[in-house]
Amino acid sequence: MMSESGEGVGLSFGDRLARRIQRVGNPVCVGIDPRPERLPRAILRDLPDTAEARAVACERYARGILDAVADLVPIVKFQSACFEALGPAGPAALDRAARYAAQQGVLTIFDGKRNDIGPTAEAYALAYLDSDAWRFDAMTVNPYLGSDGVTPFLKAAQRHGKGLFVLARTSNPSAAEFQELQVACVSPNDAQAMPLYQRVAQAIVAWNQPSAAASYSGYGLLGAVVGATSPAQLAQLRSQMPGVWFLVPGYGAQGGTARDVAGGFDPHGLGAIVNSSRGVGYAYEQDDASPKADWTELVRDAVLAMIADLESAGIRIARTT
Amino acid sequence: MMSESGEGVGLSFGDRLARRIQRVGNPVCVGIDPRPERLPRAILRDLPDTAEARAVACERYARGILDAVADLVPIVKFQSACFEALGPAGPAALDRAARYAAQQGVLTIFDGKRNDIGPTAEAYALAYLDSDAWRFDAMTVNPYLGSDGVTPFLKAAQRHGKGLFVLARTSNPSAAEFQELQVACVSPNDAQAMPLYQRVAQAIVAWNQPSAAASYSGYGLLGAVVGATSPAQLAQLRSQMPGVWFLVPGYGAQGGTARDVAGGFDPHGLGAIVNSSRGVGYAYEQDDASPKADWTELVRDAVLAMIADLESAGIRIARTT
Repeated sequence: MMSESGEGVGLSFGDRLARRIQRVGNPVCVGIDPRPERLPRAILRDLPDTAEARAVACERYARGILDAVADLVPIVKFQSACFEALGPAGPAALDRAARYAAQQGVLTIFDGKRNDIGPTAEAYALAYLDSDAWRFDAMTVNPYLGSDGVTPFLKAAQRHGKGLFVLARTSNPSAAEFQELQVACVSPNDAQAMPLYQRVAQAIVAWNQPSAAASYSGYGLLGAVVGATSPAQLAQLRSQMPGVWFLVPGYGAQGGTARDVAGGFDPHGLGAIVNSSRGVGYAYEQDDASPKADWTELVRDAVLAMIADLESAGIRIARTT
Repeated sequence: MMSESGEGVGLSFGDRLARRIQRVGNPVCVGIDPRPERLPRAILRDLPDTAEARAVACERYARGILDAVADLVPIVKFQSACFEALGPAGPAALDRAARYAAQQGVLTIFDGKRNDIGPTAEAYALAYLDSDAWRFDAMTVNPYLGSDGVTPFLKAAQRHGKGLFVLARTSNPSAAEFQELQVACVSPNDAQAMPLYQRVAQAIVAWNQPSAAASYSGYGLLGAVVGATSPAQLAQLRSQMPGVWFLVPGYGAQGGTARDVAGGFDPHGLGAIVNSSRGVGYAYEQDDASPKADWTELVRDAVLAMIADLESAGIRIARTT
């Protein structure tokens, strides 16, 4: 399994992502979160009031973003919730948009935060990583059910060169309610209590170890979702989780700055992808007074500005050709 | 919003579920988890090898189960993973099956364990609880993101008489890895450390309190998923979580017995629904030597046997007419 661009033939997801980042020279992940009421006027115009029409409009929005950014960025992230909100026509539109993205050579994440017990987790892994049912390079997973809820995803990802991003410390205000609870020692090696998210981080490192050890880049097939809202946690986790990719949400609309995310990177500028959904995907909303002819130009401009912003904070990646 | 059966007009989900259980006289939830390779021969016969055909076959399986059990049981649970595994045709088949279930008057749960940060949780809540995009009475939610990941679901459920079941202690072997970690005191009222799942349980009680207080039955719109694999935990949580419905998986194929689940009920036989997916939905696999004419008879027989088994363990509900 490889991307249609021919990149990463036979490589693991960790290496494919590293190679793609080095080729485009930046770590930006563009989030595609279509909300029907916020679509560009050019798409909304004459939109019939049917679920099918709204789904086709959201697909057009996704394709417009992909046309604007697929050559610029290493990876995009599709927010499943926005498509599911459209009814059954939504997942069908998501599928078409994801296949279009793959044709453009950009890597794709299915952001659905799936989770279940073993046999049902196998069904989710079959869906998104292990068959032609859907076409994504990676997916997000919630770890609350423990290792037998994660292992089916790991196995499927290993078989097919796909990746996983497991929630560790999310970027929302109430994330601390459970994720930062201090958990007691569970083995004699534990010197002291630690927050739950660090226990999850330890599990992610262990799950990732075999694929990281076998990689060229040092990065395995497993990633962690680590919010940009707490820079100190991000830098600490970077040092505790070598070989684990970080998917960092929270940049831009959620308040995270380039300086906040800088701690997520290794000295070579690898190790993290920084997601922006609203700041990039709805960039045209800032331009309502005198709209440009093409809303996708504003989306592309927003990505270029984000790349420059990250570089200004010292996040620089040596390009390969 | 009400079920098409006319039951529970204007009532909250907690009261609708109580009323429906008292009408049918048992707390059985039939899980609908279609796996294409395990469908009855009558459905598999001449099945073309296309995703669309497999999705239609899974819909026929769901309808067959509903024809067999909709008059017998209060509620059914659709496993979204099994439908998503079929590609985009799967969610479309799920939608048709769920609308068929509603026509039969049985309550329905969308088991997708959705979770995300606030604005995205709103999109999931809009999808499954707050619009006509899909047609379910309740859904399952994963609490790892804390209260601002749960509140959007609560608000939508409140508005439309729908319900939520939040994961507390799941029934899989590795559930303990995170859910049973001892978490330290977070307020002066905490006498001692407690397992994480009990902290989640406390949050569920708090989230449920307003709707439980306003109910006729004493049960609110919020439920908890509490596995049947640990009967002691189940009985303890029952006493700690008055007014919270329990969705108890793990009966039957996962090893839970009627005696194991008995602690989940209140003295009136309310407070819990007991799910069986494989034991009921694949009952015909036990009958391969001389198959009956109709596989749905064996599914109905399995539900009747489960009802009798629960009654033998003292789980009795006074029927209303």
